[in-house]
Amino acid sequence: MADIAKLLSPRNVAVIGAAPKGQGLRGRILEILTAHPYAGSIYPVSRSNGEVQGLKAYPTIGAVPGPVDLAVLIIPAEFVVDELRRCGEAGVGAVIVLSSGFAEEPGEAGAKKQAEIKAIAAEYGMAIMGPNSEGFANLPLALCPTFSPAVAPGNLSLLPKMPLGGRRVSVIAQSGGMGFGFYDRGRPKELGFNHIVTTGNEACLEVLDYADHLIDDPGTDVLLMLVEDIKTGSKFSTVAEKALRAGKPIILSKIGQSDAGARAAASHTAALAGSYASFSAMAHHYGIVEGRDLEHMVDLAQGFLAAGPHLPAGRRVGICTASGGGGGWIADACAAAGLEVPELDAATRREIDKIIPSYGTSQNPVDGTAQAIRSAGYAGLAGRVAPSPMVDGIIVVMSGRAGEHVAHEREALIKLRQETKKPIFMWSYTLPVSLTLETLAEAGYPLFTNMHNATGTMAAMADYRERRERFLAAPAVARVAAPVHEHASEMLSKSRGALTEYEARRVLAAYGIGHTTGQYLAKTVEQAAEAAAAIGGPVAMKVQSPDILHKTEAGGVALGITEARVREAFATIIERAQEYAPDAKIDGVLVQPMAEKGREVILGINTDPLFGPMLMVGLGGIHVEVLKDVALGPVPLSKPAALALIDQLKGRALLDAQRGVPAADVDALAELMVKLSRFAADHAEAIAEIDLNPVFVHPKGQGVTIADALIIQHGHG
Amino acid sequence: MADIAKLLSPRNVAVIGAAPKGQGLRGRILEILTAHPYAGSIYPVSRSNGEVQGLKAYPTIGAVPGPVDLAVLIIPAEFVVDELRRCGEAGVGAVIVLSSGFAEEPGEAGAKKQAEIKAIAAEYGMAIMGPNSEGFANLPLALCPTFSPAVAPGNLSLLPKMPLGGRRVSVIAQSGGMGFGFYDRGRPKELGFNHIVTTGNEACLEVLDYADHLIDDPGTDVLLMLVEDIKTGSKFSTVAEKALRAGKPIILSKIGQSDAGARAAASHTAALAGSYASFSAMAHHYGIVEGRDLEHMVDLAQGFLAAGPHLPAGRRVGICTASGGGGGWIADACAAAGLEVPELDAATRREIDKIIPSYGTSQNPVDGTAQAIRSAGYAGLAGRVAPSPMVDGIIVVMSGRAGEHVAHEREALIKLRQETKKPIFMWSYTLPVSLTLETLAEAGYPLFTNMHNATGTMAAMADYRERRERFLAAPAVARVAAPVHEHASEMLSKSRGALTEYEARRVLAAYGIGHTTGQYLAKTVEQAAEAAAAIGGPVAMKVQSPDILHKTEAGGVALGITEARVREAFATIIERAQEYAPDAKIDGVLVQPMAEKGREVILGINTDPLFGPMLMVGLGGIHVEVLKDVALGPVPLSKPAALALIDQLKGRALLDAQRGVPAADVDALAELMVKLSRFAADHAEAIAEIDLNPVFVHPKGQGVTIADALIIQHGHG
Repeated sequence: MADIAKLLSPRNVAVIGAAPKGQGLRGRILEILTAHPYAGSIYPVSRSNGEVQGLKAYPTIGAVPGPVDLAVLIIPAEFVVDELRRCGEAGVGAVIVLSSGFAEEPGEAGAKKQAEIKAIAAEYGMAIMGPNSEGFANLPLALCPTFSPAVAPGNLSLLPKMPLGGRRVSVIAQSGGMGFGFYDRGRPKELGFNHIVTTGNEACLEVLDYADHLIDDPGTDVLLMLVEDIKTGSKFSTVAEKALRAGKPIILSKIGQSDAGARAAASHTAALAGSYASFSAMAHHYGIVEGRDLEHMVDLAQGFLAAGPHLPAGRRVGICTASGGGGGWIADACAAAGLEVPELDAATRREIDKIIPSYGTSQNPVDGTAQAIRSAGYAGLAGRVAPSPMVDGIIVVMSGRAGEHVAHEREALIKLRQETKKPIFMWSYTLPVSLTLETLAEAGYPLFTNMHNATGTMAAMADYRERRERFLAAPAVARVAAPVHEHASEMLSKSRGALTEYEARRVLAAYGIGHTTGQYLAKTVEQAAEAAAAIGGPVAMKVQSPDILHKTEAGGVALGITEARVREAFATIIERAQEYAPDAKIDGVLVQPMAEKGREVILGINTDPLFGPMLMVGLGGIHVEVLKDVALGPVPLSKPAALALIDQLKGRALLDAQRGVPAADVDALAELMVKLSRFAADHAEAIAEIDLNPVFVHPKGQGVTIADALIIQHGHG
Repeated sequence: MADIAKLLSPRNVAVIGAAPKGQGLRGRILEILTAHPYAGSIYPVSRSNGEVQGLKAYPTIGAVPGPVDLAVLIIPAEFVVDELRRCGEAGVGAVIVLSSGFAEEPGEAGAKKQAEIKAIAAEYGMAIMGPNSEGFANLPLALCPTFSPAVAPGNLSLLPKMPLGGRRVSVIAQSGGMGFGFYDRGRPKELGFNHIVTTGNEACLEVLDYADHLIDDPGTDVLLMLVEDIKTGSKFSTVAEKALRAGKPIILSKIGQSDAGARAAASHTAALAGSYASFSAMAHHYGIVEGRDLEHMVDLAQGFLAAGPHLPAGRRVGICTASGGGGGWIADACAAAGLEVPELDAATRREIDKIIPSYGTSQNPVDGTAQAIRSAGYAGLAGRVAPSPMVDGIIVVMSGRAGEHVAHEREALIKLRQETKKPIFMWSYTLPVSLTLETLAEAGYPLFTNMHNATGTMAAMADYRERRERFLAAPAVARVAAPVHEHASEMLSKSRGALTEYEARRVLAAYGIGHTTGQYLAKTVEQAAEAAAAIGGPVAMKVQSPDILHKTEAGGVALGITEARVREAFATIIERAQEYAPDAKIDGVLVQPMAEKGREVILGINTDPLFGPMLMVGLGGIHVEVLKDVALGPVPLSKPAALALIDQLKGRALLDAQRGVPAADVDALAELMVKLSRFAADHAEAIAEIDLNPVFVHPKGQGVTIADALIIQHGHG
């Protein structure tokens, strides 16, 4: 495996194609590299110059003395492959290819060159970033092998003196501009950045490889990721789970949610975008925090950096303000983010009332008025709200323009931060001056200029904690006994591509999913009549054919058939099916008891090209078909995760008691989902799709009924 | 009427309670006032000083020479009333009361003082702002009678040299902090502000009075409003319609959407918050642009200021970028905002392809790569996309950090802006430097740092144009003939508080809403049997009593009753009703044909305490009861507005053709809504509530059936 540590933390760097200042990107990269106090050696490699920008230059990589950890390639695409080979021969450990002109080009030539990069990397065991990358920055090492203006000389110091929370965030992005954009936005907010990695075309190392590496990096507490495409889907769950267990939040945005976005991502990195719905389901399952835009993601990062392990235990917020309007406005923003702003308890209110004037209020939002802020300060007011058992976090409405005012209460702010474990956010309704930013960062308070980002971050932190705790506490999804597994495998392997309901029910029943009681496959009129007699009462009759997947459409279903009408129904079904599909192989007619009605739900398994089988649950009928109200999750799925999935449905309330109808047996539905997910996970090699549609969910305690079932194996339909 | 012009544009200003520098707010206000080049006279009024801050001071307002247009009161609350009277006696035209301690105080005393302010204003015809206001700023006059730090000396010049679009925005807010917060955010973005008004407790002048005034002000092109409460609901539609006709967009946020927000607003300005749902419906109807937060609203303002009359004709966006990732990301943001990013036409692509390298793309997002931006500039690339017949607006992804680069193509940017009428937005993924901001503002381009605000603003501008055009084109809602009006009034006045379905149907039928054919009120078993015979086929039977509003709950409804069972049903209904409400006056049993089923819809009228009758439409059954899927609009409602309301329903697609069911007769539903809205508007004095629930909407061309109707008059239940 390539050594990413050598790539990101090299002891020395060679710049192949280095040029004097002013000569475009080739000059720029050395200019930026040398502007920072990187302690390692920097070796320009130049055919035409013996010295570049004051450094001794070497004619070839082979001429550089001693082993080179990292070579930076900034030469035309057509020379890259040969140069890489020279690097390999010279024992270079890692390479960044900044050059463009590979798989992002139309036509075969670029893709071919990119494949060669991959082959050389494997041959020599080199860690290769790019091609078409903007490089990276290792801020603690003051190492910036990139041409990004964000770390060019003349900016703020690479790391703030007192980074917020004493913690650091790393960025991984395929796009160079956006990757360094996070730093451009976050550094002025006094965030400490560890690494910024821009992966480019990912001939070798993918975003998830860097993430895997950085989760182990003690200097990285939070990850910010912007992803256009995931090349190896199987890495996703491994990396996401590792991050979740380590308690290192991943804040991620996935480009390609829209057609145009996907089109852009595809043309830009020459990749196929996977399904966004599946991605989003995976992210949700693994506690990944989905970000909306640069500001939102930087703000999420600052919330997590400031909080460290002290995440809000719930969603109840205390608001402190000197502006009544500001307090009310952000209270609305809390509600919009799913947070609560409860009235405070009497004891807390008494303490607050001691320091606020009569025209203020301690109810929550706590309006201390300008008078209380002048006398007690933001810390004084927040310090009286924080202990309330009614709140899990605090948001202080303040004016960051008043830097001296904030600096004046520096000690009190530090003390308050040390004394309470609850997150305390600052929302400034004015643009903050740097004195405010520095003071608050030192004291450990994230400063938000956008109120929805403040409330959204508080909610995301509560969500993250909840999802992480659920994930860590979830029992392993029980395995089935080996013979059951084998039996099901055998049935599947003996089946045709599409399993009829009768066949599907038998396989599913082996896994404890539904049962086969009262299910008769009638091949003749006589058998149908016998089956109906055995069942007693009206029956459902359905044509069984691997060639007829849509039985109703084919006229192959008859419901509520009384014993007297069974024969006629059998004949009609067979006749219609033969008309509908003259060449279909017809196994017979399934005769079964009428399904007892209940809330209509649809369960399914679909195979995502990146992530494999995904379980889908939706409210049936119009809710799925017209309103697209479904939720997805990876398999296997624990029961708490299944319940959480059901809770994601917009029409979730339809399963509650209403209109005189008792609540639905959500518990039984969740158990069915767990079993189905186990089955799908165990037989992912064989199964492409499963549809249980409809499933009727009966009142609490009365279970569920699978009214129809279909299994399609890979390579079919 | 008080003269708001004298208040906001006075020829001179007296500051009552003026103090030397350093003496709190009393010193501060004169310091701020005198720091700007206001051309009028400033007269300090001070009991204790003959000179204040270098200006001659006067012992009383009466002693100031000549007539005073505006007096600023910064004295303790207990002296305000007396001082106001002195102002009135001295012929002062307008007053700002900055002092706190009025209706926002708990108890009666503050409210009483505030009432006295109102009385004095009326007595002397003075325009009074406040109390508890933070004052205002008239930026073109360089007049800042406020203690807001946002306009204190040491900041940027009050107005930019070249304000964006050459236009100006005015701010009206009840909250001083938030009001000046817009300026604090917007001025660094080179927005030209006209007035900033903070209205405080609004003893006299309300937000809508200022809005009414500023819509007539030629110096105001756009209004930014932050509203905690609307004191006089009837002013809302007048002002909103005036603004819409004038083409001056109102960008507004209403505090109090959540319980906590409403609680804050109520305690803060001593006001009752109206229903947010009604407010939002009014805003939607009148093309008011709802803002989310300070940044969002300032960004909306800059979009409108830059565009002036040239709003996007549709929702199709062309994206120009040098960053593939940035292009894809904002394409997703376009989709999230309801915008489209279509592939460009071949002719446009040919022109673009001439200037971009092979690894770029002209499809849209147009990725010119860094190379095209270097050679053709942002203007060069955008100028080739803008003429495409496929797009209504352009968003350019750029780096605002590169100020010289932008300044370098200043001329080209100006030329492009003059040549195209389509909005061109800049989204910077880096924090912009002031050279970028100034250059772009001069050239007429709004610069967004938040990509969702960029796409949201483009969408809001398209929405505004569409709503405005619909509003201006909507036919007046036809009046009914006077005798019809009188007849309905008479029936209502003769009715009891709650009208039974039988009575309600008669009144509604007079307005052409439904009909009374086949509706029989049976007082006896015999009459019921006769009615059923006359109807033929199964009937619905419902108890009719002004004391039983929930007939089903009372067991007073029997459906699908055949002729043979009518007598028994009659007896059962009467018996159950008497059990349910022993004292109820029972008129009899309504016998009617069974309603023909269709898509179930609910229509209603509810009286909002602020805005009067509001029409509600919702998808019936669970969609209203569980999912709360309803839309509201003011009455009367034109047919285009009714159709727009139906389109707002989340489950709108349920009315389309689906699952073999033909599309519903949405046209007939809209016509029913128009008639119902006319009826509700005409009889708003009498009617508190109307419920038509359910209404069955039949397939296209087959109309609607009102299956139940209830009218409740004011003062009842």
